[in-house]
Amino acid sequence: MNINNIVVVSPMYQEIQTLMEKREITKNFRFLPEERVTSADLAWADAFVAFNTKKDYDYCQVQWVHSLGAGVDRFLFKKQWPEGVLLTRTICSFGQRIAEYCLSYILKDIQFHNEFNELQAKKTWKPLTPKLLNEQKVMIFGTGEIGQKTAEILSSLGVDVFGVSLSGKDKEHFKEVITIGAHEERLNEVNYVINTLPLTEKTEALFDEKVFNHLSNVGFINVGRGATIDEKALLQALENKHIKFAVLDVFTVEPLPKDSSLWEHPSVIITPHISAVTTPDEGVDCFVDTLMNIEAKKPLRNKVEISKGF
Amino acid sequence: MNINNIVVVSPMYQEIQTLMEKREITKNFRFLPEERVTSADLAWADAFVAFNTKKDYDYCQVQWVHSLGAGVDRFLFKKQWPEGVLLTRTICSFGQRIAEYCLSYILKDIQFHNEFNELQAKKTWKPLTPKLLNEQKVMIFGTGEIGQKTAEILSSLGVDVFGVSLSGKDKEHFKEVITIGAHEERLNEVNYVINTLPLTEKTEALFDEKVFNHLSNVGFINVGRGATIDEKALLQALENKHIKFAVLDVFTVEPLPKDSSLWEHPSVIITPHISAVTTPDEGVDCFVDTLMNIEAKKPLRNKVEISKGF
Repeated sequence: MNINNIVVVSPMYQEIQTLMEKREITKNFRFLPEERVTSADLAWADAFVAFNTKKDYDYCQVQWVHSLGAGVDRFLFKKQWPEGVLLTRTICSFGQRIAEYCLSYILKDIQFHNEFNELQAKKTWKPLTPKLLNEQKVMIFGTGEIGQKTAEILSSLGVDVFGVSLSGKDKEHFKEVITIGAHEERLNEVNYVINTLPLTEKTEALFDEKVFNHLSNVGFINVGRGATIDEKALLQALENKHIKFAVLDVFTVEPLPKDSSLWEHPSVIITPHISAVTTPDEGVDCFVDTLMNIEAKKPLRNKVEISKGF
Repeated sequence: MNINNIVVVSPMYQEIQTLMEKREITKNFRFLPEERVTSADLAWADAFVAFNTKKDYDYCQVQWVHSLGAGVDRFLFKKQWPEGVLLTRTICSFGQRIAEYCLSYILKDIQFHNEFNELQAKKTWKPLTPKLLNEQKVMIFGTGEIGQKTAEILSSLGVDVFGVSLSGKDKEHFKEVITIGAHEERLNEVNYVINTLPLTEKTEALFDEKVFNHLSNVGFINVGRGATIDEKALLQALENKHIKFAVLDVFTVEPLPKDSSLWEHPSVIITPHISAVTTPDEGVDCFVDTLMNIEAKKPLRNKVEISKGF
């Protein structure tokens, strides 16, 4: 592969340009906001670097597409990917970020933040004993980079962490990895479910009524993709106490529409897709590393397997 | 020391009795609520095991007093301790408990729980990038069992942890331990201050206007003792933004009186002395261990140094 001309498309294109120029990479760059990308840019480019584009481009013309995000459903889900075009994705501090996000909401729950807040409002002194992390069981869907880092951090704090994956292959930091399908009868054992799954044809609406019915009063955290969840079934599961509370960072439609009933649900916490942010710094780091590895013909650990969709 | 007759005084005396009887210890026990303790009980006892008594007893008559809590200011602060009477205290999962308590409030802050809660109430999708633990600096006052366990857990998550102690002696898990007195000029470096100090003549009102004036927009967490803080100075420091928010689990007077202005302060979180709870199970475990160690003439790591007050 011979990469000379690179188009970078992002709302943060100026910041990325500044950071990239400091690296003194001897390639030709065009840094653009999405609305200014033309077909001439694509014809010129060997590589296309993009964050969250709204349009689909004709990637046949380039050799390599690099996603500035971790998820690549934007490029692959229900789409045809041109054969022979390399697709890579950003892997950086996502695992650490998502682990801390999840941990913060688990601790909020077991340390009774809500309960003490309500008691304080009533000036009521009523001791409740917080639960400990080492008394908690968590099931993480997805045992890739993000799921694994989350498992590492939670298990280091004494949490029993179970994983669910397509293969069921053992991974470090998980007490046990369960093959998807075999996981349903294990769902009633856990206190928290964390979804880190990408959106693919196999994961779309994976969390449906049937899955939720196996849960009993759990905290459900979605940091994967919104469309992996059947939203109606989620609301029903909250109603039936299969789910005690849901922390949702991702949604089928983002920004979450104003008329969504999730906004006002007392047991739903909404955050605006911030659990795994790519900072411009990290995005540039990961892109440059990938470029170096491509040129050195080294293996790429962030190469997307098109058939799997992640 | 010859321990045969043991008086156990606690609001949870019945639970403790049930647990103790399972241990089949061949000693004579009297399990009592405080209001039923008589001078005859004290005259009979070799050992006095107590949790949070309101009255002072004449401990001259016993050989050993064991506190079912970690703090022993109840027995020592501004009091005369009878020479030759052994005082021990409970050490159990306090460190883990307090570490998780503190971590929950640090994560609440850097993950913007309040901000996202307010945005959700307005149905507003506005991304904010959470801060990471490895960008935070914490200063822990007290480098004993509790401070050290808190340092261990926070530093394992990437936090820079500084300690403050009387001796300034290096301790594992702290990046640096600073001698009290020399710490003031370092206070402006940190994002969070955690107080785990016991109440002694040296720590009473240690956190005063002068100390608070060195802080800049920090989160202040008190899990030590309420009287180590000058409460008026704390309110002033919240006013002047030296302190961004305070999480208080301990107070000079507990339960916190209804007329305290802390209850309604928007930047104060009040919890009812629950960050380090002794469960009956753990209390009995620690007592039995201590008894065994005394009888085997082994060193006691939970022996209180009367002159130090902890």
